[in-house]
Amino acid sequence: MRAVLKVIGLTENITSTQAISCKHRQIHSSHSRCKASIIDGVKRANSIQDELKKEVSLLEGNRPQLTTVLVGDDYVSHVYIKRKMMAAKAVGISTNTIYLENSCSERDLVSLLDSLNQDVNVNAILVQLPLPNHICERTICNTIAPLKDVDGFNFFNMGRFALGMNALWPCTAMAVHDLITSTGGSPGMDATTTICHRHTPLSLLSSLTKSADILISATGVPGLISSSMVKPGACVIDVGITRIHNEELKETRLIGDVDFDGVSKIAGFLTPVPGGVGPMTVAMLLKNTVLAYKLQMRGKG
Amino acid sequence: MRAVLKVIGLTENITSTQAISCKHRQIHSSHSRCKASIIDGVKRANSIQDELKKEVSLLEGNRPQLTTVLVGDDYVSHVYIKRKMMAAKAVGISTNTIYLENSCSERDLVSLLDSLNQDVNVNAILVQLPLPNHICERTICNTIAPLKDVDGFNFFNMGRFALGMNALWPCTAMAVHDLITSTGGSPGMDATTTICHRHTPLSLLSSLTKSADILISATGVPGLISSSMVKPGACVIDVGITRIHNEELKETRLIGDVDFDGVSKIAGFLTPVPGGVGPMTVAMLLKNTVLAYKLQMRGKG
Repeated sequence: MRAVLKVIGLTENITSTQAISCKHRQIHSSHSRCKASIIDGVKRANSIQDELKKEVSLLEGNRPQLTTVLVGDDYVSHVYIKRKMMAAKAVGISTNTIYLENSCSERDLVSLLDSLNQDVNVNAILVQLPLPNHICERTICNTIAPLKDVDGFNFFNMGRFALGMNALWPCTAMAVHDLITSTGGSPGMDATTTICHRHTPLSLLSSLTKSADILISATGVPGLISSSMVKPGACVIDVGITRIHNEELKETRLIGDVDFDGVSKIAGFLTPVPGGVGPMTVAMLLKNTVLAYKLQMRGKG
Repeated sequence: MRAVLKVIGLTENITSTQAISCKHRQIHSSHSRCKASIIDGVKRANSIQDELKKEVSLLEGNRPQLTTVLVGDDYVSHVYIKRKMMAAKAVGISTNTIYLENSCSERDLVSLLDSLNQDVNVNAILVQLPLPNHICERTICNTIAPLKDVDGFNFFNMGRFALGMNALWPCTAMAVHDLITSTGGSPGMDATTTICHRHTPLSLLSSLTKSADILISATGVPGLISSSMVKPGACVIDVGITRIHNEELKETRLIGDVDFDGVSKIAGFLTPVPGGVGPMTVAMLLKNTVLAYKLQMRGKG
């Protein structure tokens, strides 16, 4: 699996579609009318969070503390932060959110992070992305202390992740890994991995996705992956989340990269949007928070 | 180009063949009888070393110091170290090689590296790989101080490399990058990259290599890449080096992964073995040594 996850971590999940040929249990390989097993991300996330709740209740000393930083007034970012904080509280993690104006300078944000890095009462730091254009996200990710970097985006954690070393790994990559292994698939180092992206010609993209036993899409292009692009029986993981607002119906829908109705007739396994990778990513953030706490306690002991 | 190099660095060049589709100048795309342009790694390496010699002669203070560590009596490792040291001296780098018995423990090697890390007279440290089985190479690579790690194998440098950040990048990846750009090709972030390896079925391998505009092979399997596996006009970089000893003739030949005679009739560009990636990797080691020296001086200034 590492070959797969490496790439996800490094591209930060936003523009790549991965086509992977590897051994994977294929349940529906010959029946294109079969309905794919839908991987329930909410159920899996709840189960992880239940375990974390138990673990946190048994910890000695203070509860793990997660501080999030939100710059600007992006509506979706506020929704995400609220959801993360609620989930954290539910497992017994102590939380705090710092709100900064959109006009906040990079220097001010770096100063804030420096003080949070030093603060012994803060175990975990998450800066909600994206940031305003005048702030360099790479600089900010690298400013967070590696042992508190629960998003796993500091180059320190990315390097260790890429080499398969212990670290705070990127949450989405961990979520994808967990969802694939939950199907009984265990793609190991034997996976032949292709990374596609916005510059890959569509015809080439199709032929590559069509040959993949595991297909992970993280483009943010709603419905990009149609049934004709999927190998029968493949395990399809949809990382894309696009919010579509219907003004007339006054409703907002979340749509993934994958044409769910079409692909569910072809794939062996499929994650839904919402209810797939999203809740699992939150669960992995909480897992990293508890891990960060334990690593820091070990350092003190 | 980054997409290509990332993977090379991370797989440490030893077991992967990469098939890359991207825009690349194709000179011989339609004439299979055309002879490929042979990329002269020796000439390019000499030119880089000439520049470094000038740069070193202008440096204030001491000359850059490179210390190499060689464990055991592997003949090939001794040849490599000798070659690196000679090249270093020729550009004005001060050198030292520490020889350790094959029975040396991991702890002793770590202690030695700790003291070299502290030694202000040592600017660059290289531990010749492979190490005896009882020593973990990852541990050793991570023990070398990032600012002295001229092989670029510490997770710190690998992480920064993977993210395109300034660092001491892995020498072979730098060599491959330079050789490709020297042909006028400039594969950018638009490269669709596939990583193949020992677990990739041969039929799949062939179809993937055949579709690649740039093909980088680093397997150590002599002659693995035959002409039927190469796209006409492709740029083929041969990182593999295998020593074949002929007892009767009392001669040792170096053989690459690529069937040179066959592929040179198909490819647009091709690196030879010897005389391709090998000497360029040495040049990049020296480039990193000078960079390490300058980074350390800047830290003092």
